Amino acid sequence: MNESENFNEQTLDESTMTAFDHLIINANIATFSAHYGFNIYEDADSIPYGQLHNAAIGIKNGKIAWIGAHEQITTHLPHYQENQVTDVDGKWITPGLIDCHTHIVYGGNRSNEFEARLQGASYQDIAAQGGGIVATVSATRAASIESLFTQSEKRLIALIKEGVTSIEIKSGYGLDLDTERKMLTVARQLGEKHGIHVSTTYLAAHALPPEYKSHMQDRADDYIEQVCEWLPILHSEGLVDAVDGFCEKIAFSSDQIRRVFEVARSLDLPVKLHSEQLSDIGGSALVAEYKGLSSDHLEHLSETDIAKMAASNTIAVILPGAFYTLRETKLPPIEALRKHRVPMAISTDCNPGTSPLTSLLLTMNMGCTLFYLTPEEVLAGSTVYAAQALGLASKGKIEVGCDADLALWDIARPADLAYQMGLNPIQGIMVRGQWRETA
Amino acid sequence: MNESENFNEQTLDESTMTAFDHLIINANIATFSAHYGFNIYEDADSIPYGQLHNAAIGIKNGKIAWIGAHEQITTHLPHYQENQVTDVDGKWITPGLIDCHTHIVYGGNRSNEFEARLQGASYQDIAAQGGGIVATVSATRAASIESLFTQSEKRLIALIKEGVTSIEIKSGYGLDLDTERKMLTVARQLGEKHGIHVSTTYLAAHALPPEYKSHMQDRADDYIEQVCEWLPILHSEGLVDAVDGFCEKIAFSSDQIRRVFEVARSLDLPVKLHSEQLSDIGGSALVAEYKGLSSDHLEHLSETDIAKMAASNTIAVILPGAFYTLRETKLPPIEALRKHRVPMAISTDCNPGTSPLTSLLLTMNMGCTLFYLTPEEVLAGSTVYAAQALGLASKGKIEVGCDADLALWDIARPADLAYQMGLNPIQGIMVRGQWRETA
Repeated sequence: MNESENFNEQTLDESTMTAFDHLIINANIATFSAHYGFNIYEDADSIPYGQLHNAAIGIKNGKIAWIGAHEQITTHLPHYQENQVTDVDGKWITPGLIDCHTHIVYGGNRSNEFEARLQGASYQDIAAQGGGIVATVSATRAASIESLFTQSEKRLIALIKEGVTSIEIKSGYGLDLDTERKMLTVARQLGEKHGIHVSTTYLAAHALPPEYKSHMQDRADDYIEQVCEWLPILHSEGLVDAVDGFCEKIAFSSDQIRRVFEVARSLDLPVKLHSEQLSDIGGSALVAEYKGLSSDHLEHLSETDIAKMAASNTIAVILPGAFYTLRETKLPPIEALRKHRVPMAISTDCNPGTSPLTSLLLTMNMGCTLFYLTPEEVLAGSTVYAAQALGLASKGKIEVGCDADLALWDIARPADLAYQMGLNPIQGIMVRGQWRETA
Repeated sequence: MNESENFNEQTLDESTMTAFDHLIINANIATFSAHYGFNIYEDADSIPYGQLHNAAIGIKNGKIAWIGAHEQITTHLPHYQENQVTDVDGKWITPGLIDCHTHIVYGGNRSNEFEARLQGASYQDIAAQGGGIVATVSATRAASIESLFTQSEKRLIALIKEGVTSIEIKSGYGLDLDTERKMLTVARQLGEKHGIHVSTTYLAAHALPPEYKSHMQDRADDYIEQVCEWLPILHSEGLVDAVDGFCEKIAFSSDQIRRVFEVARSLDLPVKLHSEQLSDIGGSALVAEYKGLSSDHLEHLSETDIAKMAASNTIAVILPGAFYTLRETKLPPIEALRKHRVPMAISTDCNPGTSPLTSLLLTMNMGCTLFYLTPEEVLAGSTVYAAQALGLASKGKIEVGCDADLALWDIARPADLAYQMGLNPIQGIMVRGQWRETA
């Protein structure tokens, strides 16, 4: 496959070529589309990033309607008004970035604990003072919906400023029905106000709430029963796009998560899971059994369960921000994931305890530096595979029929996005065909 | 010492209190001033960050003229025009941040090498293709002064947007007289255009230029002779504030650096050095002998040489971005530096090869996460100690008589600056008494 052949396939008749809502011309494009040769495994004829040079994009009704060589459109340009054409002057276009695993809605922050630990306090000291996740649960429960919105919006804005046009947002700091509802409502409101796509995820099975702990015994099964009861209620209110849990020795067993997944299945809701972050208690195998969208973290994932993920088309979501913040040393099984061709997405995992990170660009750099992923892998992991991790078939790549969610970058080559730390080369984003400033 | 006593010391007569150029009111201030109890070693009566609450600052002629309790100024407010008063509504003020070790002026970038290495190329492969520092030297030599300015300015703007009001910029990618001059000239021009303080550093002893290498032998001594000849020339042109070198087995010996330092001494120029990054060949001991401003990197620094740095009042400049990018494992001797009370500064080390990093906030987080520094240490390392590393006595702290170089932050507490990754809470900077927007 070569690029000009592709372009030719896309030539359309005169009436179509003069009737786009908007044109982007003079672009270099990282399409992440197999149609343009994107193939992360670099089989024969693959083209890095599925890249196109000197290309143009025609947009109609918020969708990508045509992609071709810049020269193909030049004769039609007189049919367009000035404000319908964006000449990007050789800059790079990628799909709008997708942050597919976040906890950006929460109250308070935990910089006091961050500081206390560095001053010598142990995790036990901090827990004894009401710290850890309990502190975030308390602050989130106490926050008004307006305050929760305002606090969380800062984090969303930081991500949008770096090219994010779709984001997943989890609940899981309420751990009671009202606060889980409040978190998911804020997630929906954030998407509406900022006009970007928000996928909401119900994560009540995140931690055992303090009121379920006692000196006698933890009542984790009782809590899971509540989690299962709340899910249909919140789903009926239109607040739940997917269901998640934290499958870990310090959280919930795979049997407990299975009970939640059964309810999800009965509601036809897709599942995903925090799996194998600190130990292997069978999370990814469970997700694969339920043909889940993604299994996330995965430092302790076994090759046996990677094969199960491959068979169930489950995406591996890699979260280097938590690895970095927790100073972990065990790397996720990147080579085995490549070998079994399990697509890898990456995400900020933005949360107040283990990943206070609101930069998907920095996450890309961490993926390269800490996990030895290639720039193409981390960019695919923030676009096409992140879309798959959210079940969004029309996002994350640039091809005809997909949503016109794009990011425009002042870079020399796509690898710049993963190489630079702290330099944001964004020039603007397009969401469903509309340009928006990011400054 | 308590905070209100301090405030009272600062009460002034009516005529003074009504004649400031500008007032900042309702502020929380991290002063980093011993006058307000700042003492990184937490001796008796120390106050974290030298912090003041509900405070006000009076500014005159670009200097901090008065600091006191907010209540002390309220009766005088009617004397001020609205545009002379900034009510910061409880937000935090720190000294303007100081990035004390950077190589932000260079041509090109090295994302292609970053990508090639992750695709499996060895350093040898890359060097054989003209990569590594040679690639940056070639691009910097080839760039016009205007292009070099434009390329470097993006990096400076990124830093300023995060509160940087003073920066050190090194030469060292020219390795010939004309290009070293071009780099230092661009550094000066950047400071002038952006109105911030730039300290220039002559780093011709950074690497052996390609034309001094041959199959027969490296002519490093010959090159050092040139370095020594160029220094007085560039100094006479007003381009050199300090002199630096790279003392390492892969660069120059301490005897070679000594020759450069001798010329610096003859010109009364302060020295600093890239020392003990990869091995210990006596760099810090040499800097201490010349009573240098700072010794930088220091992963392999011995306690013996730490004692020498303590005796010579040499600052230890810690560079976590390079440690992170190179995936180093040997930590700098933080505990021994604390024990000997050698002040630690931190810096981005922004450079295209080993630290493509233009975020001093992220550098602070790396200092905490990778090197176990406390938030107070990394903030002091980006303010008061960074100023000392540049010999800037009137910057880096908030006390009467210092330059009114400030940063305003929307944070709950100072530790937030080191805790958050990717969230820039800057609200504005003040440079020599003038507010500037950072958006």
